Amino acid sequence: MPSLDDATRGRILFGGDYNPEQWPEETWAEDVRLMKRAGVSSVTLGVFSWATIEPRPGAREFGWLDRLMELMDSNGIGVVLATPTASPPPWLGARHPETLPRDEDGRVVWWGSRQHFCPSSPVYRGYAAALTEDLAARYADHPALRMWHINNEYCTHCWCDATARHFRVWLRDRYGDLATLNEAWGTAFWSQRYDSWEEIIPPRRAQYMRNPGQALDFRRFTSDALLECYLAERDIVRRHSPRTPVTTNFMPLWIGQDAWAWAEHEDAVSVDVYPDPRDPQGGQLNALVGDMTRSQAKGPWMVMEQAAGAVNWRGVNHPKPYGLNRLWSLQSVARGADAICYFQWRASRQGAEKFHSGMVPHAGEEGRVFRETVRIGAELVLLGPEVAGTQVPAEIAVLHDWDSWWADQQDGRLSAHLDHAELVQAWHRALWESNLPTAFARPDHDLSGYRLVVLPHLYLLDDAAIENLTGYVAGGGTLVCGFLTGIADRDDRVREGGMDARLRALLGIGTLHEWWPLEPDESVACDGFRGRLWSEELELSTGEAVASYRDGELAGLPAVVRNGRAWYVSTLPDPAELRALLARIAGEAGAAPTVAGAPEGVEAVRRGGLLFLLNHGRATVTVPLPGRHHELLEDRPVAGAVELARFGVAVLRPLPE
Amino acid sequence: MPSLDDATRGRILFGGDYNPEQWPEETWAEDVRLMKRAGVSSVTLGVFSWATIEPRPGAREFGWLDRLMELMDSNGIGVVLATPTASPPPWLGARHPETLPRDEDGRVVWWGSRQHFCPSSPVYRGYAAALTEDLAARYADHPALRMWHINNEYCTHCWCDATARHFRVWLRDRYGDLATLNEAWGTAFWSQRYDSWEEIIPPRRAQYMRNPGQALDFRRFTSDALLECYLAERDIVRRHSPRTPVTTNFMPLWIGQDAWAWAEHEDAVSVDVYPDPRDPQGGQLNALVGDMTRSQAKGPWMVMEQAAGAVNWRGVNHPKPYGLNRLWSLQSVARGADAICYFQWRASRQGAEKFHSGMVPHAGEEGRVFRETVRIGAELVLLGPEVAGTQVPAEIAVLHDWDSWWADQQDGRLSAHLDHAELVQAWHRALWESNLPTAFARPDHDLSGYRLVVLPHLYLLDDAAIENLTGYVAGGGTLVCGFLTGIADRDDRVREGGMDARLRALLGIGTLHEWWPLEPDESVACDGFRGRLWSEELELSTGEAVASYRDGELAGLPAVVRNGRAWYVSTLPDPAELRALLARIAGEAGAAPTVAGAPEGVEAVRRGGLLFLLNHGRATVTVPLPGRHHELLEDRPVAGAVELARFGVAVLRPLPE
Amino acid sequence: MPSLDDATRGRILFGGDYNPEQWPEETWAEDVRLMKRAGVSSVTLGVFSWATIEPRPGAREFGWLDRLMELMDSNGIGVVLATPTASPPPWLGARHPETLPRDEDGRVVWWGSRQHFCPSSPVYRGYAAALTEDLAARYADHPALRMWHINNEYCTHCWCDATARHFRVWLRDRYGDLATLNEAWGTAFWSQRYDSWEEIIPPRRAQYMRNPGQALDFRRFTSDALLECYLAERDIVRRHSPRTPVTTNFMPLWIGQDAWAWAEHEDAVSVDVYPDPRDPQGGQLNALVGDMTRSQAKGPWMVMEQAAGAVNWRGVNHPKPYGLNRLWSLQSVARGADAICYFQWRASRQGAEKFHSGMVPHAGEEGRVFRETVRIGAELVLLGPEVAGTQVPAEIAVLHDWDSWWADQQDGRLSAHLDHAELVQAWHRALWESNLPTAFARPDHDLSGYRLVVLPHLYLLDDAAIENLTGYVAGGGTLVCGFLTGIADRDDRVREGGMDARLRALLGIGTLHEWWPLEPDESVACDGFRGRLWSEELELSTGEAVASYRDGELAGLPAVVRNGRAWYVSTLPDPAELRALLARIAGEAGAAPTVAGAPEGVEAVRRGGLLFLLNHGRATVTVPLPGRHHELLEDRPVAGAVELARFGVAVLRPLPE
Repeated sequence: MPSLDDATRGRILFGGDYNPEQWPEETWAEDVRLMKRAGVSSVTLGVFSWATIEPRPGAREFGWLDRLMELMDSNGIGVVLATPTASPPPWLGARHPETLPRDEDGRVVWWGSRQHFCPSSPVYRGYAAALTEDLAARYADHPALRMWHINNEYCTHCWCDATARHFRVWLRDRYGDLATLNEAWGTAFWSQRYDSWEEIIPPRRAQYMRNPGQALDFRRFTSDALLECYLAERDIVRRHSPRTPVTTNFMPLWIGQDAWAWAEHEDAVSVDVYPDPRDPQGGQLNALVGDMTRSQAKGPWMVMEQAAGAVNWRGVNHPKPYGLNRLWSLQSVARGADAICYFQWRASRQGAEKFHSGMVPHAGEEGRVFRETVRIGAELVLLGPEVAGTQVPAEIAVLHDWDSWWADQQDGRLSAHLDHAELVQAWHRALWESNLPTAFARPDHDLSGYRLVVLPHLYLLDDAAIENLTGYVAGGGTLVCGFLTGIADRDDRVREGGMDARLRALLGIGTLHEWWPLEPDESVACDGFRGRLWSEELELSTGEAVASYRDGELAGLPAVVRNGRAWYVSTLPDPAELRALLARIAGEAGAAPTVAGAPEGVEAVRRGGLLFLLNHGRATVTVPLPGRHHELLEDRPVAGAVELARFGVAVLRPLPE
Repeated sequence: MPSLDDATRGRILFGGDYNPEQWPEETWAEDVRLMKRAGVSSVTLGVFSWATIEPRPGAREFGWLDRLMELMDSNGIGVVLATPTASPPPWLGARHPETLPRDEDGRVVWWGSRQHFCPSSPVYRGYAAALTEDLAARYADHPALRMWHINNEYCTHCWCDATARHFRVWLRDRYGDLATLNEAWGTAFWSQRYDSWEEIIPPRRAQYMRNPGQALDFRRFTSDALLECYLAERDIVRRHSPRTPVTTNFMPLWIGQDAWAWAEHEDAVSVDVYPDPRDPQGGQLNALVGDMTRSQAKGPWMVMEQAAGAVNWRGVNHPKPYGLNRLWSLQSVARGADAICYFQWRASRQGAEKFHSGMVPHAGEEGRVFRETVRIGAELVLLGPEVAGTQVPAEIAVLHDWDSWWADQQDGRLSAHLDHAELVQAWHRALWESNLPTAFARPDHDLSGYRLVVLPHLYLLDDAAIENLTGYVAGGGTLVCGFLTGIADRDDRVREGGMDARLRALLGIGTLHEWWPLEPDESVACDGFRGRLWSEELELSTGEAVASYRDGELAGLPAVVRNGRAWYVSTLPDPAELRALLARIAGEAGAAPTVAGAPEGVEAVRRGGLLFLLNHGRATVTVPLPGRHHELLEDRPVAGAVELARFGVAVLRPLPE
Repeated sequence: MPSLDDATRGRILFGGDYNPEQWPEETWAEDVRLMKRAGVSSVTLGVFSWATIEPRPGAREFGWLDRLMELMDSNGIGVVLATPTASPPPWLGARHPETLPRDEDGRVVWWGSRQHFCPSSPVYRGYAAALTEDLAARYADHPALRMWHINNEYCTHCWCDATARHFRVWLRDRYGDLATLNEAWGTAFWSQRYDSWEEIIPPRRAQYMRNPGQALDFRRFTSDALLECYLAERDIVRRHSPRTPVTTNFMPLWIGQDAWAWAEHEDAVSVDVYPDPRDPQGGQLNALVGDMTRSQAKGPWMVMEQAAGAVNWRGVNHPKPYGLNRLWSLQSVARGADAICYFQWRASRQGAEKFHSGMVPHAGEEGRVFRETVRIGAELVLLGPEVAGTQVPAEIAVLHDWDSWWADQQDGRLSAHLDHAELVQAWHRALWESNLPTAFARPDHDLSGYRLVVLPHLYLLDDAAIENLTGYVAGGGTLVCGFLTGIADRDDRVREGGMDARLRALLGIGTLHEWWPLEPDESVACDGFRGRLWSEELELSTGEAVASYRDGELAGLPAVVRNGRAWYVSTLPDPAELRALLARIAGEAGAAPTVAGAPEGVEAVRRGGLLFLLNHGRATVTVPLPGRHHELLEDRPVAGAVELARFGVAVLRPLPE
């Protein structure tokens, strides 16, 4: 099987989405000049080119793309070639209205934007396959081709009748017979028993809360239906060029797509990452995406898209202050990225994203943003041979799982204010701020290599996952669980006792009397910290109350429980206290921070023998660093300490004493 | 006619919705054991059993229900048997899409939840009647049967074409000819004159505000259309078992259903009541629902549903702290309830309501909630013979009327921040906090038995109501009116002068110059209090300004007006001041509090010769109580004072001196 | 061509919408009595009379209108006769559902309110034309007729298939061929290239942001489609009565209708103006509407609708305190109005607007509101001969343009918190508070007559506009531009460099590096003021930084730039500072305030040789006024100073020294 290495060839890819069809051909030469000035080594072509290549059904206009592939190749720039199937031309919807999605209210989703296709539509799939076939046949052997990029940010949901038929096929595969489905969905409640497959529909607009089993399976189905679309196109390009790696770009922490499952089917895993430049946790979010994507990729991964400056889809779209683009780009490299790419090369002058930044801004070559582009490009050329293909070690795993997320975010929950992604981010933040290197894993993965496993919030755990966790602790591992762990089984059925009995035994909990969710603006005092979002009325068996509630109805009851190497945290401690708690537990488990005593806001990561120090703050700081190092970016020796300016980065190779 | 007494048979019913079809039959035996432990005397079966009984059109699966009826009977547990017509099986919508409701935007409301039927659909009505017929025939004479429960929380609204046809029939009945309808709706405005009945539709999505007459009549029609559904099923079960009482469960203070009108057609009146355990006014809301339901029932009534702990449909769903379930249950008994029932017996492990509490929680028999269930059951067994069937006296009536509510909540009002239910609650609260026993009445009811009539906010008063009120005052009664009283006639036509002339004469108001609504966060100073929500520019005739506005544009103008025994309050005083005002007026009218000098938060109610004292606070309090009493729950004598712990209740029988 | 003078005949029209079809004929006589008491000289008939005149297709019921026209004429009251085409009768939608609009989600907009017609529907247009024809033929020569009023507040939008067909015709006219359209809309982005005209649809519900070119053209098209409706009816009435002026009433600062373009086709320009009585800027908004409407009318204009008291479409609808209606009415006269009319004469007792105030309130003749009506009427009789037909001089122009507004308010902007109308209002406020007389103009108008041109925010400027502005400055004019000026060309294509190069040269800006929008609650310190909403990273060429940013990422960079007589303000200064800045620039440009040293809240305007002084405050103030004047309203001499009570107005004729 090919891999990302086949595309990077020992370098870090630098570049971005390139949409030359928006520009006259005379601009292309100018683009090449600027790309070379910026050290661009890779461009992604074709993402939104369907209507340009196939302006009417069956037509093929490849001439412009031939010229571009040639232009890139002759200038030493590799091409990530996209199947342009994410945005069908207007003619597809106009001639085949059944390819248009319908939302859960039955409203047609029209063309005029992008992603207006029903993933279950055979007509859409047919046109997409035919185009992919011809594209692959034409460019499979082109010397510029480095990688295939299938579609773009798969995210379409549809509730139409074709989807209903497809959903029934998926359900038949899953359940075999209706009795099993009725049992899994609990259709005895509210008289929802299905008597024939034809009665089953996607969870459409209803009078009140919808069946959670149906809703959960529709989430699973939709991820799988999109995966089918991906696989169909992947198989075509793979047939034509079996040695060229294939990817599709994820949106990180996005609920619609089970990235663990998808990553299994990719040669290279890529992601689009857009933290808000104003978000104080933006740097941590970038680290989290790196850790998660690297874990899904099981090694080096790609930043397929990020913004050189502002995006244009927030309420207020802030540019990146000088240095922040570089900081986050090098942070991604530190956390395993072998490709730093952008949407897009040149800011568009027209269309819906004309206020989304580009590597070349509206201000052009003289613009401040392009100066930073040039700087980053040069540094990646420098770092490439040092890091490309290397690993990022981690002794701690954070568990995350889409099934649980899907089951968790339904109607009729005890609190509408629990956000799965926010909880994962809160726990990862505690580790990140302590410079504790972290991977992500799914609860059924082999965890034996980790000293500590952190489970922020997995409401649904199937039997295999529970056995895996108890086995992990039995084997000497340390496990910390957040609240609402293991409440539901695979079918979202509440476990007897409100929490799985095996987990209760593991955590030393006898009876879980009641859940006590908190209001969004509420907190509860505990020994040594304040908890938010949640609390629980617990009666312990073998567990020990490490901290108890101090006020409210639960005063005196356990808040944090320890049962040997298994911990349970029944509320969400404030950030500093959660950090202290996890640092303590990690220490006991033998997991050490990358660098001890780094000033606040300084991130330290090791990759492939190098130590990256990254200053996320605006003040200059000094990082004490025992021994002698060589700093690569400025090519200078360092001893005892490193000074980092605002948004400063040092990449250090340890020197012998 | 049968009555609630035929079901209670001298006891207080205790139990809840029981959905055994969700559980394997081995759980049924366990249920019976726990029911007996808890003193359960009544279960409601069948509410959501349509698909279980009729898994496909015309099928009948009664075996499981036969076994359950038998199981209940053999264990001395009575059955409230529901017609399962609230939640049709998937096959009904799949085979007869015309039975599915459409919302006012034309969107289909699909199956997958519950209540997905158009009440005007002949097909739905036909299937519902056939099933009701067979159910009634089978169980009419079963010894376990205590009561019929028709459908569940009738609340479906529909704007489809079948509804349009039905609406026209209803309108023909009401108006006879189109000219009368055009006059009633004021269709001369905005060119809305109807030239044929076929042009009339439900008030669907429109460009701007819709005709208020059409909207008001559609509210009336929908309540009546649902009532037709109820009556059709009631008539069937009554034919089979003329001596078994029939009920359907109301949602209290719910705008969609004119409970005054419906109660006329029920043998027993039942209600579902779910105050938020966190709401500081939760206890008062429970009292209000009791007072209102008792008034509709003209005597004892049923709590058909309440929650033993948390519900699962709020943003944050708080459990009930220990003692609160008992407090509110005994409060309902004090205010006339002869049945304390729950949704539901055993918390579901699947389905949309799996996080709604049950009498048996997820934690099972060991759970804290079940302990409170057992305690309540035992106390109800004790109290039953003392109170079942007895009355709750009241000298004060609060007026409430759905017609007025409907007319009040339309588009194009002077303030969108007036909430009819909140205003009713604000005025009831003032009386409740003073322990002034209160009934509810409609403005056209016989009021002669009351010393004081309180009219919080009846924007619409027809001529009969106005004559009734003026006659009441002429006959010696005392009347207090809140703002916006009697503005509109039966057709929502503004009365000449902006307020009915007869009312202005009664209240001593000459000219109502202008309404001055206040912003939600605004208040206006008056003599001795602050007013909120509203103010008015009044010129008095014979009335006396008891309090005047003190700031703003109305400074110096009357705020509270008295004209003999008739009072008008043109703003909403803050709670303490409204309480003081009503206490003063009640005192002058000769209406005395149940107990004088009770500490704040202590409710005192008399029922059937007993005095209930209920502590809604978390601190222990002492209630001075002249004379000697016997306390029934703890079976002990009490003299001079009673101590009540947090959420404590005392039930006292006066002893001769 | 006829003009407003043909209707006013040397007076100020006073009156309002009169809907007598809502009332029995006996009320008509009472109306006439009160109209004469109030000095009413003009009523608008027929606005919502379609169903009354044509109760069924083709019928004509003119008798009632004949009687009314006669009644008005015999009492000396002129009639503004409306074509009643804004609100079709129910039968039109019922018989021709294709005349009903569909919204962008495809939902039908039903009858039951008003304005439920698709402006592209040939059936609607046909019925409207036929009725207009008959109405015009019947009343063209009636002595009561003073003016034609076409339709009412044209505002309907529609996304139906008929609209799609019509849109395509409009696009063919604009672009000629598809290649040009594809280029203008930038359809190369997101694969949106159109291959045939039939593929083009209105911008309906889509998965993500829609094409901005398509959306902008749909705005243009909709304004034009409504204009076609207007022109069709205007041409009919003009054919029948070529000497009677024609108008249609605008909603001011309303995004849906390009009032500049429409005004070209009206004989008299009229507007509906409804400031919130509670809005502290209500008086300024009234002034702005006056300035804008006068500029569109190129002279005297009409207040076609305002409210005597409260409206009924806000969340809380406040009445007008005594004196405010008079203040704003005389303010409109001061700013050029020759007609002061209301919606409506008598408050309705039924229908959706029964809580909208009338000149005769619900309280009737005795109501406080009617007393003010009488007072205003008498004063207008007095002022009419002095001011009717005279001009309001202004040396400053504020630029405003619908094309730019439309382009500005699309999805995918850098900040969703920029409101075009609010920005225009903020800049106008600065001038109004300084009593600097102001007109409005479009950027392509002849500006040579103004000493100062203020451009608050014109994101889109076509080449002609840019040449006009540079020519204006070259010719000696002074220009001040707010931020985001001239970013896009006529097709909403971002100008190279992010801002047009000619404008950058004019303003002395070399490079516009990045836009830095601010959060809604954020501000940035600058030299001498705080800026809100926006900031920019600028590099100057010939410009001079008059003020710089003082904190944040832009500290030290220019905030306010001056390049000779051209100014650029890259943020929004707080009101007092923007006022000071514009007062300084106006002073340098030689534009003087109407009255120097007026107390805060006092507005001074000159019209036709008279000086109006208006006190918008609640405190009595003294305005120093050199020389001798005669005050017309109280008929008294004034020397040295004028005292104005709360909401007081003085109208002064200068006397020789």
